[in-house]
Amino acid sequence: MGLKNTLFKIGRGQSGAKNLITDVAGVTVGHVTLCDGDRICTGVTAILPHGGDLFHDKVMAASCVLNGYGKTIGLVQVDELGTIETPVILTNTLSVGTAATAVVKYMMARNADIGREAGTVNSVVCECNDGSLNDIRGLFVKEEHVFEAIESCDADFAEGAVGAGTGMCCLGFKGGIGSASRVVTLDGRDYTVGALVLANFGGAGRLMIDGRQVGQEIQKAMAETPDKGSIIMILATDIPLNERQLKRVARRAGVGLARTGSYMGNGSGDIAIAFTTANRLPHTSDKAILPFSMVLDDKLDPVFDMTAEAVEESIISALWHAETTHGRDGRVMQGLREAWEKYFC
Amino acid sequence: MGLKNTLFKIGRGQSGAKNLITDVAGVTVGHVTLCDGDRICTGVTAILPHGGDLFHDKVMAASCVLNGYGKTIGLVQVDELGTIETPVILTNTLSVGTAATAVVKYMMARNADIGREAGTVNSVVCECNDGSLNDIRGLFVKEEHVFEAIESCDADFAEGAVGAGTGMCCLGFKGGIGSASRVVTLDGRDYTVGALVLANFGGAGRLMIDGRQVGQEIQKAMAETPDKGSIIMILATDIPLNERQLKRVARRAGVGLARTGSYMGNGSGDIAIAFTTANRLPHTSDKAILPFSMVLDDKLDPVFDMTAEAVEESIISALWHAETTHGRDGRVMQGLREAWEKYFC
Amino acid sequence: MGLKNTLFKIGRGQSGAKNLITDVAGVTVGHVTLCDGDRICTGVTAILPHGGDLFHDKVMAASCVLNGYGKTIGLVQVDELGTIETPVILTNTLSVGTAATAVVKYMMARNADIGREAGTVNSVVCECNDGSLNDIRGLFVKEEHVFEAIESCDADFAEGAVGAGTGMCCLGFKGGIGSASRVVTLDGRDYTVGALVLANFGGAGRLMIDGRQVGQEIQKAMAETPDKGSIIMILATDIPLNERQLKRVARRAGVGLARTGSYMGNGSGDIAIAFTTANRLPHTSDKAILPFSMVLDDKLDPVFDMTAEAVEESIISALWHAETTHGRDGRVMQGLREAWEKYFC
Amino acid sequence: MGLKNTLFKIGRGQSGAKNLITDVAGVTVGHVTLCDGDRICTGVTAILPHGGDLFHDKVMAASCVLNGYGKTIGLVQVDELGTIETPVILTNTLSVGTAATAVVKYMMARNADIGREAGTVNSVVCECNDGSLNDIRGLFVKEEHVFEAIESCDADFAEGAVGAGTGMCCLGFKGGIGSASRVVTLDGRDYTVGALVLANFGGAGRLMIDGRQVGQEIQKAMAETPDKGSIIMILATDIPLNERQLKRVARRAGVGLARTGSYMGNGSGDIAIAFTTANRLPHTSDKAILPFSMVLDDKLDPVFDMTAEAVEESIISALWHAETTHGRDGRVMQGLREAWEKYFC
Repeated sequence: MGLKNTLFKIGRGQSGAKNLITDVAGVTVGHVTLCDGDRICTGVTAILPHGGDLFHDKVMAASCVLNGYGKTIGLVQVDELGTIETPVILTNTLSVGTAATAVVKYMMARNADIGREAGTVNSVVCECNDGSLNDIRGLFVKEEHVFEAIESCDADFAEGAVGAGTGMCCLGFKGGIGSASRVVTLDGRDYTVGALVLANFGGAGRLMIDGRQVGQEIQKAMAETPDKGSIIMILATDIPLNERQLKRVARRAGVGLARTGSYMGNGSGDIAIAFTTANRLPHTSDKAILPFSMVLDDKLDPVFDMTAEAVEESIISALWHAETTHGRDGRVMQGLREAWEKYFC
Repeated sequence: MGLKNTLFKIGRGQSGAKNLITDVAGVTVGHVTLCDGDRICTGVTAILPHGGDLFHDKVMAASCVLNGYGKTIGLVQVDELGTIETPVILTNTLSVGTAATAVVKYMMARNADIGREAGTVNSVVCECNDGSLNDIRGLFVKEEHVFEAIESCDADFAEGAVGAGTGMCCLGFKGGIGSASRVVTLDGRDYTVGALVLANFGGAGRLMIDGRQVGQEIQKAMAETPDKGSIIMILATDIPLNERQLKRVARRAGVGLARTGSYMGNGSGDIAIAFTTANRLPHTSDKAILPFSMVLDDKLDPVFDMTAEAVEESIISALWHAETTHGRDGRVMQGLREAWEKYFC
Repeated sequence: MGLKNTLFKIGRGQSGAKNLITDVAGVTVGHVTLCDGDRICTGVTAILPHGGDLFHDKVMAASCVLNGYGKTIGLVQVDELGTIETPVILTNTLSVGTAATAVVKYMMARNADIGREAGTVNSVVCECNDGSLNDIRGLFVKEEHVFEAIESCDADFAEGAVGAGTGMCCLGFKGGIGSASRVVTLDGRDYTVGALVLANFGGAGRLMIDGRQVGQEIQKAMAETPDKGSIIMILATDIPLNERQLKRVARRAGVGLARTGSYMGNGSGDIAIAFTTANRLPHTSDKAILPFSMVLDDKLDPVFDMTAEAVEESIISALWHAETTHGRDGRVMQGLREAWEKYFC
Repeated sequence: MGLKNTLFKIGRGQSGAKNLITDVAGVTVGHVTLCDGDRICTGVTAILPHGGDLFHDKVMAASCVLNGYGKTIGLVQVDELGTIETPVILTNTLSVGTAATAVVKYMMARNADIGREAGTVNSVVCECNDGSLNDIRGLFVKEEHVFEAIESCDADFAEGAVGAGTGMCCLGFKGGIGSASRVVTLDGRDYTVGALVLANFGGAGRLMIDGRQVGQEIQKAMAETPDKGSIIMILATDIPLNERQLKRVARRAGVGLARTGSYMGNGSGDIAIAFTTANRLPHTSDKAILPFSMVLDDKLDPVFDMTAEAVEESIISALWHAETTHGRDGRVMQGLREAWEKYFC
């Protein structure tokens, strides 16, 4: 299980079987990595909230914009209607338009009613700026990469410098995709909170691991760099929460983020999206009134606590898995593990 | 039935039996009117979402601040937790502190667990500034007036220059309390949307009744006055909506408001609160997960439409019922009906 | 001046010279209309806040999501940073991704620092669903149409079934692009508030013109249709407002909207964006602290009032200018003027 | 200077001369402590943004509700108008109404125009629940205590179990009032960011000091307790920020909070208010348009960073200064310093 269960122990909770967002049953993740060791250093990551017909069987959802210096697409409707009805796509900042169009095409191909009797479809596309390593002006992400990422979604997936994380940097180290999960017991049954992050935030010298100022230790010779970049935090659960509660959960992503060394810098688009697979909504229905369930807010503390932990560990996991990467103009970003070994071993 | 069913027809919908907010089963309203025809021209209005133990059997709720130049108390928690757990009190602006304390005392007297194992209690107190007619600096509202208003709550209640509406002015006429209701049919069953307003907004010459510029006609000799004052709009329903949906409903109060002549002036605290008696939440529970129901958003159009109508009619009803009133420093505010009769008859 | 100064008189204010959003000095508008009288019935409208280098000379801005069933791109950053730094593009719902990519390319072509030392760029793209007349699944809008719309921006521009408005429907009539302006005097100087709408909302039988239920009169034989569709409302001014104040202005767009017959139906993405040309922000600066000016909120009433009027008139103007249009599958949407003449003349 | 400059070093920044919120020139703080070692264990803390006529010389302000399980009064108007116009009062939860009325009386006594030509006044009153040590049902805070707290405001003030902090508990230790400040240099001039917290949040075993899990070490024998209670975080600065920026600053209070051991538990009302003494607004003005200045957002990183640090240190400072306290029903809450000495020495 690598880092998550051996090297570092973040928090107090119990992780799920894989310690990944895909411990939430039905959730899958897929990557397309575009990397030529030179100009192209980017990619796409897709998250499927479930394996069925997302448009007609939406998941309840909400978002929290912790710092809105970002170009995420789709949040206006997510927050108004409280649903996600497409795969969630992560990619680089300048490719969000291409990804949104790809999602539209993907959904139209599977739903003949979109653009007709069913109205339109709301793509959810999130981003970070990988322009430090990637020649982001090249717009290397194409629609087929989005299709491919969606098609490759699986319960098993890689972390680190892969998919949308390929060119990301975080806290002065190579960043990327990280994930973790936690178990929460309610009414005697185990549920899961899972997190997946696209970590691209923070300045050198700031990394904290479980409270330890690792960044200061390892990077003391480096000039401190500004908190640029952004982080996308996707939270999935099978706990029956409603939209107000999912927004509360999304807000707790900021707790985990703060504990890794972020102060939510001006230039960092820090955005969390939370969804539950337990409350589903049809696109239309003969019946107007439908049954749902929700947790009494009084019982949400372990959900909040484990959300914060899962995000904190996802970020550390992203850094731990991300290998040293070569990008545009001869730039190199060192992976945390390589730095760690050099420094401590 | 007076105005509501004969003189004016606002909108297209069907009103409930009383055409009052109390057509929503269980909702009751009570007033205390403080008026000496001179300095004292104020009061208190209480709305009980239901007749039971509100603290342990909360109603689901949400608010919408259309224009926040206002001193309403309690919205932070209403929006975070999605519940109302006390009577809703309306009074004058400078008396909200007194009313909040009175609600605390009222709730503590009925719930020995408040301030102990159950935590604290969130008073909801709304206000408008009746300082035009009332010597608002006199702070004439006392805690006992709040208790009295709560105790007098009933399904039958007066509109016009009563309770919190005693000293209010609206669109250049005497304002006050108004109410209306509409029937919405979902899944073959009739539900009710009810509105109660404390109308104290708008400038002379602006009143529109069903699109007709009545204010311009009647008040053409008057100088136009600024849109000062505020309006509180309380929306009740027995439709099972969740908090996100109740917020959407509350936002539609602005539609009805706009149609009566408001442009939501800078100085007007325009605030809507919506609750449903159909989704109740306990203060605590052995079980973490509880069942609820909600309307699919796709079916909400009649709810939105009837909310707008009910608010529009409530405002007109407030004006129509409000008699010409004498206040501080010899000030007089003419009632719409008196002005109407003088002008048109 | 057509409709605006002769046929209808909306409100009490004084319009600017053209009675268009371009009465705000520097603002220009351009259209690309894609219409084959059959499947293709769509287009693009571009609004340039000023004619200079938008990326390095941003305009202060804010948004208000009145009803978020919409896919507008870019609001997360507009609200966080309070700026618009690109042309604002309007098009059909499924083409927002393409338009966002086109804006990125347009901006990169003019700014070599984007994606390099200056970070990325935040495209603002708004939309309505023209799928009733347009075969929206065809994705007919291409990047070059966006470039063309931007390049064609001018202080003179057409209203009605043009540009993004080509395939739109509103209140049971042909919808489209409409615009209006109002003069506001502050400190003895005349300023302008301008509005441009993409009107695609509302059901048949609901149109109100200056309070008159024109829709009921003309369309009484038609079945009432749901309030689907959306409206985008762009507000421009040369009054020095800050972001909080621009958000307040944007919220008043809902007042004008309500007065034309909308109740902000569930399916309607009702979104307002306001910017001022008077407060500009550089992308970076040597100096940290910069001077600005703002109106004391106490003086904002005429700004709010004229915003509501300008939006109301823009909607009526959109309908009045939109000609009867033939679209996909033999569908025809009648223009208001044709309907009016048939009915009243 | 006690703790702040010797025992603990929180963060990297330079504190101001006193390392208190009152390092921001003009800001003063006053306490009234009500404590009989038995039932009464509560108080009032007042913060004056400046020493002049607050009603006619308002400070620019904004708030951020991190978790809204709280009863703070006044935020609706603070956020709409972007100003604070009264002293800010902190007290216990059930006394907010009394405090709001006291503020109204205090302001009326100094401003004859309130309730007359100047409209009403917006009290800002924040709270935490001290019911663990205080018999909060006793409503021991009276209006005169609020007047007294305001009158005692000074640049020098005590931290710990004083004023509103008298009965507060935090992270399983005695909580209370804490404060800190940081210097930020912009355009070659030193500015100050100051924080004052009323710390009453968090469960036993959670305290982190500069990343170290002190709570786990000291309290390992204690049962973990839920994250109840709340925290109020007041941020003051002399940097010219506007309301949007002050809201961004207020949001960073959550970064400092997270680093001390909070996950923003359900029952915790976590609320931040930020104001600047550098941008002042009159109540009315002959001129509509007034000059202001603001920092380009690009330069805000040190402000955000130092805000997070100041809040983190304020919380630790509150705990460090709070002495072991005896309250109702024989309850005792141990101070951190006493626990520290017992455990580590």
